[in-house]
Amino acid sequence: MTGSVVVVTGGIGGAKLVLGLTHVVPAGKLTAIVNTGDDTDHLGLRVSPDIDTLIYTLSGLSDTERGWGRKGETWGFMASLRTIGGEDWFNLGDHDLALHVERARRLRAGETLSQITADFAAKLGAGIPIIPMSDQPVATRVITDEGDLAFQDYFVRRRCAPRVESIRFEGAEAARPSPGVIEALAAPDLEAIIIAPSNPWLSVDPILAVPGMADLLRAAKAPVVVVTPLPGGKAVKGPTAKIMEELGLELTAASIEAHYAGLADAFLLDDADPPIGSPHAACDTWMTSLDDRIRVARAALDLARR
Amino acid sequence: MTGSVVVVTGGIGGAKLVLGLTHVVPAGKLTAIVNTGDDTDHLGLRVSPDIDTLIYTLSGLSDTERGWGRKGETWGFMASLRTIGGEDWFNLGDHDLALHVERARRLRAGETLSQITADFAAKLGAGIPIIPMSDQPVATRVITDEGDLAFQDYFVRRRCAPRVESIRFEGAEAARPSPGVIEALAAPDLEAIIIAPSNPWLSVDPILAVPGMADLLRAAKAPVVVVTPLPGGKAVKGPTAKIMEELGLELTAASIEAHYAGLADAFLLDDADPPIGSPHAACDTWMTSLDDRIRVARAALDLARR
Repeated sequence: MTGSVVVVTGGIGGAKLVLGLTHVVPAGKLTAIVNTGDDTDHLGLRVSPDIDTLIYTLSGLSDTERGWGRKGETWGFMASLRTIGGEDWFNLGDHDLALHVERARRLRAGETLSQITADFAAKLGAGIPIIPMSDQPVATRVITDEGDLAFQDYFVRRRCAPRVESIRFEGAEAARPSPGVIEALAAPDLEAIIIAPSNPWLSVDPILAVPGMADLLRAAKAPVVVVTPLPGGKAVKGPTAKIMEELGLELTAASIEAHYAGLADAFLLDDADPPIGSPHAACDTWMTSLDDRIRVARAALDLARR
Repeated sequence: MTGSVVVVTGGIGGAKLVLGLTHVVPAGKLTAIVNTGDDTDHLGLRVSPDIDTLIYTLSGLSDTERGWGRKGETWGFMASLRTIGGEDWFNLGDHDLALHVERARRLRAGETLSQITADFAAKLGAGIPIIPMSDQPVATRVITDEGDLAFQDYFVRRRCAPRVESIRFEGAEAARPSPGVIEALAAPDLEAIIIAPSNPWLSVDPILAVPGMADLLRAAKAPVVVVTPLPGGKAVKGPTAKIMEELGLELTAASIEAHYAGLADAFLLDDADPPIGSPHAACDTWMTSLDDRIRVARAALDLARR
């Protein structure tokens, strides 16, 4: 495959697949479109968790043992913030913090999130274009039995404990796909669009909620391949399984298939999943090592090519 | 002396005297009025260098070896900021940073600088009320042979290299003394007002530039005692001597006397200074050890009592 590839992704799980893709797709041919529904103004800083997770992962800066944030991170800011009574439920490492401070400053100065993200990714050595889904703010809100919660409030502060009733994307109606999204999906040599195994409801739906996004994906020349996030009915990490149960969905690849109906052309299942009606292939989709990530990336591209 | 004492102070040199005063003035009787002309919005954060220096000094958190900032400080934020091309001429330690982030957040939320400062001072254990000169922003600007510079631009970025022609205090006309200033100077048991040996032009003049401040000091029941900042004609630290030369002033206590004419009732000179016309006393005003600070504090209070 020598054409270009677009990967649509959320946070940690998605970043693993993108890292695999960087080893399989030729240099200059891979673009990532990233969820910004988790973005938040915290303490007056602008935090873009999924963008930063992807930059850190691709730049070799992520803490692979802890599973989030930066390796060699220090926590002086948080320790000090606690002594003056600041909000300490959202952990911000000292190194990580620089991106949130600088992002907020540059947004206030009139730059777009796309411009800032491109610059951070280049300076830190991510190696591929990292494109926010939109330059307009879209905020994922989780409607739960304990009220309508901001995403980080639900995800970090409440550790996904409240029962999810529905999910909405505040500001989505006024958002539009960022210029880089439109350009990447219109590439004449586009050969595959891969939807990473991120949480379909929390991480991919905000991207699809941007008006025009789903149409751009459907209109693109390349097939849309979903790497399913629920190998053998088990969520790898995070609240996917819990949310599916709360939404009354079966923990099966068929539920993922139904979720992406009308958008996806094919599904990469895990070896442990029973077959589904749509075009599909299967492999071991657990991604622990770099070799795992490369294997899944290659399988997704092979499926797109078929 | 069992009455109350107000000390008017700038940064590092002033903080040494205030620390001495805390060992001499009975608990609950000492209040510090602090310069905020050095305050700046940097990277969207709100930095109040003189307030923080005083809080850190009184709370035992200051780095006495380096001479500024906090002991045990770490620099992860700055290192990371550099990698993404952020402005790195103004050093912000990871622990220090928490105050600037939280101060900016609380100001935006509508709290006054007085309220925030009182809370930080209490939480960090400063032990005395620390009161900003004003709740309105006043920005010291240094007019130099290289242009009209913001204070931190002159002081930190240019390391006081440009030649000073004059100094102005932007916003002063719209400022008023903060409520705590008015209250402290109206205390019925006020026995002394001490002007700390901070730079008269850069650190004390912004305080005096707040409309009504000089009148409040003159109207107070207690004498105003200046601890002169130029022992034997030598500046202890910082650009005092350089600025005086550039402004065409002699490096003598008499120049300090002339500067505070009409405001000060008495001057505490250094043993190395020749006598001046105003009421005065002298001692060794170099403050290296805590004992030095206590000695100078005691001498200033003794002079006020006479």
